[in-house]
Amino acid sequence: MELEQYLEMVATQIDSLIDRSFGNTWSDLDRASTHLLVAGGKRLRPAVVMLSADAINHGSSSDILPAALSLELIHTFTLVHDDIMDDDTMRRGVPTVHTKWDIPTGILAGDVLYARAFEFLCLAMASEKAKIRAVSMLARACAEICAGQHLDMSFEKRDDVTEDEYFEMAKKKTGMLYAAAAGIGAILAGGTPYQAKNLYQFGLNTGIAFQIQDDLIDLLTSSEKSGKDRASDLRDGKQTLIWIRAREKGIDLSKYKRDLSDADIEEVISILDKVGVIADVKKAATDLVNESNRLLNTLPQSPERELLKDIGKFFVTRSF
Amino acid sequence: MELEQYLEMVATQIDSLIDRSFGNTWSDLDRASTHLLVAGGKRLRPAVVMLSADAINHGSSSDILPAALSLELIHTFTLVHDDIMDDDTMRRGVPTVHTKWDIPTGILAGDVLYARAFEFLCLAMASEKAKIRAVSMLARACAEICAGQHLDMSFEKRDDVTEDEYFEMAKKKTGMLYAAAAGIGAILAGGTPYQAKNLYQFGLNTGIAFQIQDDLIDLLTSSEKSGKDRASDLRDGKQTLIWIRAREKGIDLSKYKRDLSDADIEEVISILDKVGVIADVKKAATDLVNESNRLLNTLPQSPERELLKDIGKFFVTRSF
Repeated sequence: MELEQYLEMVATQIDSLIDRSFGNTWSDLDRASTHLLVAGGKRLRPAVVMLSADAINHGSSSDILPAALSLELIHTFTLVHDDIMDDDTMRRGVPTVHTKWDIPTGILAGDVLYARAFEFLCLAMASEKAKIRAVSMLARACAEICAGQHLDMSFEKRDDVTEDEYFEMAKKKTGMLYAAAAGIGAILAGGTPYQAKNLYQFGLNTGIAFQIQDDLIDLLTSSEKSGKDRASDLRDGKQTLIWIRAREKGIDLSKYKRDLSDADIEEVISILDKVGVIADVKKAATDLVNESNRLLNTLPQSPERELLKDIGKFFVTRSF
Repeated sequence: MELEQYLEMVATQIDSLIDRSFGNTWSDLDRASTHLLVAGGKRLRPAVVMLSADAINHGSSSDILPAALSLELIHTFTLVHDDIMDDDTMRRGVPTVHTKWDIPTGILAGDVLYARAFEFLCLAMASEKAKIRAVSMLARACAEICAGQHLDMSFEKRDDVTEDEYFEMAKKKTGMLYAAAAGIGAILAGGTPYQAKNLYQFGLNTGIAFQIQDDLIDLLTSSEKSGKDRASDLRDGKQTLIWIRAREKGIDLSKYKRDLSDADIEEVISILDKVGVIADVKKAATDLVNESNRLLNTLPQSPERELLKDIGKFFVTRSF
């Protein structure tokens, strides 16, 4: 199966479970909680959960669909809360929750998704022991994601963030949830600690690469295509790898810390392209994926293992 | 043992576990997360977890101390987020998290506590099966708490909230976490479904009574003693049982929807006292506790069962 077909299949299954579980929304808070969840999204984290499970134990993924949804719920909760903190207005082509409702409802909507994630994780068909390990791993990831978001925001007040600091932030903010996705898939499918560790590490590294690509998309992709505010990282002064590498080349991006027109954005891209920053940053992401894909060679040969490698490559080639 | 001694013992154990687990706080977010947690609090929910466990299986509470802490962590997370939504400035005698830091840090600090709660629940010494049931129950409670807080806020825009609606809100906002505390204690101690159900119901009703008493304290107790903003419910126009019963007696409290001086507050109390509203509301709370304490008679006779009854009575007699 091609990756595209596989992702479509996962999205269909996840969307159907969302519809069955959240379809009867009667309260305003229910509607706010499901607003972003039903607005689309590529369901990449659920796909990593399911591919990891099947790479360990073929056919096990259908038993753990609720766990796959759990990861999507955590991802969506972090989006809802981050949008408040970063004051983003658009996401997945729709107004963000706190924009459509208000900040208190945005906070609560995220908190509801957070709770539901742990409820759904418990519904997976797997041993109780595996599920407790999965709950622990997910909770640990959540705490780290918060630390990552906090670091990311603290960077906005600085202009001397190092590459190591950026990678630490990206690991926490984005890597940990992909690590948990792959690790939880492996654990629930009955993988050995060694297999679970390798898949966890694979998720961690590809997750960091995913974040780097996200930074590129924020700059390079139009709002129409990405469904979110364009160049919001520049506006907020986020110390992305792009920003750091530009600084190393003597380019100061801080003068773009404001709402930018399309012409402004084209100007920035052209400056960065000229000195090779865009290509450099792309290479950093690709190198990470190549490295982490090698970890997968410790798993038995299977179509799902190859699809996991494909998903890694997709993370750093996607344009939205 | 007297209840007071018991509560002191639980608080010492919980505080010590907090100190061991959160003592080494190095990041700013860690400090924000633990700010309210270490500022005191009576640790009543942990006490309910531990008493329920011991009422089922004497001596089992020491195995599940992390689960008792888990309930305190969830409680604290809800305080941190509620303080943002209600814009309260003082809590447990210290500035609220978003006041001392900022709103983004307040959101994240709550989110970190939320995660830690599930981590700690997994650390309890109990069967994996019991722990998964406990995780489910806690997650379910969290979603309901959010719904309760949302209802509570939506009431601020109305002046026709009925008693039934108030009780529904109090059940979700406060009852569900006490229900989970008692239910989780019973489940982790190996209680039968019947025992767990009765303890859950006990927690639910005493929790509602706790909320009614909290409304009274908000009005009657000085800030110095309660450690939080006085009469913030009136200021925010919260439709408490006091407000609803006053309305039934023809008293419109909406003119007190503003920052109130001590003299204003004394005036309100005197008006409400004269028509018997304060006594009425106190009776509603006491009746609830008496009723729910009767549920405990289905448990075997034990000192802990009696302490659970005492805690119910304490909920509706405490003055802060």
